[in-house]
Amino acid sequence: MIIQTPTTFFLVKGSSEGFSLLNAFDGALLASGVGDTNLVKMSSILPPGCKELNPPPVPMPQGALVPVAYASLCSDVPGEIISAAVAIGIPKDTKRAGLIMEYSARAEEKVVVEQVKKMVEKGMEMRNREIKEIMAISASYRVINIGAAFAGVVLWD
Amino acid sequence: MIIQTPTTFFLVKGSSEGFSLLNAFDGALLASGVGDTNLVKMSSILPPGCKELNPPPVPMPQGALVPVAYASLCSDVPGEIISAAVAIGIPKDTKRAGLIMEYSARAEEKVVVEQVKKMVEKGMEMRNREIKEIMAISASYRVINIGAAFAGVVLWD
Amino acid sequence: MIIQTPTTFFLVKGSSEGFSLLNAFDGALLASGVGDTNLVKMSSILPPGCKELNPPPVPMPQGALVPVAYASLCSDVPGEIISAAVAIGIPKDTKRAGLIMEYSARAEEKVVVEQVKKMVEKGMEMRNREIKEIMAISASYRVINIGAAFAGVVLWD
Repeated sequence: MIIQTPTTFFLVKGSSEGFSLLNAFDGALLASGVGDTNLVKMSSILPPGCKELNPPPVPMPQGALVPVAYASLCSDVPGEIISAAVAIGIPKDTKRAGLIMEYSARAEEKVVVEQVKKMVEKGMEMRNREIKEIMAISASYRVINIGAAFAGVVLWD
Repeated sequence: MIIQTPTTFFLVKGSSEGFSLLNAFDGALLASGVGDTNLVKMSSILPPGCKELNPPPVPMPQGALVPVAYASLCSDVPGEIISAAVAIGIPKDTKRAGLIMEYSARAEEKVVVEQVKKMVEKGMEMRNREIKEIMAISASYRVINIGAAFAGVVLWD
Repeated sequence: MIIQTPTTFFLVKGSSEGFSLLNAFDGALLASGVGDTNLVKMSSILPPGCKELNPPPVPMPQGALVPVAYASLCSDVPGEIISAAVAIGIPKDTKRAGLIMEYSARAEEKVVVEQVKKMVEKGMEMRNREIKEIMAISASYRVINIGAAFAGVVLWD
């Protein structure tokens, strides 16, 4: 079976300074609790009936291949504010899929969260799918020298 | 078994207007019939003997992790024409892999399709592999405010 | 079981000229021995106890879905030197994960390799994890018309 469908999810976020842009990203993953896994990026649907894992699996299995929808931003502009956010539109109808949206910008956290929630609303509208609830998570960071912000939805077994 | 090999494939395409660049991309996925799945992007080989699924699985399992090779382009330049295309070089020798190529540009559909087919020809030449047939699919879109075009090869069990 | 953990790895690298940027990338994959597989890019951890496969599986199963951490760079600037490198920090404690870093630049191979090794050192420092050994592989290429360089760590069953 190649085609598989996750049954649980959890939200993560973090930010970090780093030696390089990739080190900053790695640091943001560590701060999020997923820094020792192998993230596989995917486009961004919450399977029907997928439940939140709360608390998340800690520690996560090191080196495991983990499907994730995420937003991130790295910057090497000292003083710059960077924000990353993801939001999930949970549908009223539990037999339908939810929608995950990602957004990041050189902007305040509040702006980025509002935008990503709006994106979920519009995407659910496009599906004619009523929203029960929007969940969101975000990270914001003021860069010292080189920094990164990360927010993601991890899908899980 | 982590390493797995798909046995069937199908071609999809679509385009859409959207509230944001990501919403437009999401709309193009919906128009393609894969908007409620979790696409995992991969580099782009058709396994030997992989057969076309015709018709495609409709509806697809919501939220499933689906490997796909795709081209896409988003634009927020009103009036701009954007095109995305994928092509598959099917080899004469059914024991050899086929090659998938992706191309997108701010150009007419015809131009993009010709280019992606040429890319398949050159890639099969590089493999010294004779082509039985080239399959292609493409999408083109004239942007109103924010739009996206998408074309992909979905690999399947 | 969606969440899986690879048990072996191997290092690959290659470079190529090509008809287009994507053909050059494809050529670099072919030169690396992974050109007929479906690479799925991931962020970049070596699972605890993951062993080097030496020699690598040749030929690899055509069209298989293969998780890989990689650096690559394509260029259409004739005469330009492009280099790509990956490095792995192998931890002293075999129960902990190793770290893979990727780096590419329009620069000499030596510069890129030094940078990627430094990135591994800093990333392992961030984890308070002592390094037993750093492994690295790199590719460098002087572009004729359109070229690509590629270096990667393939994870395997």
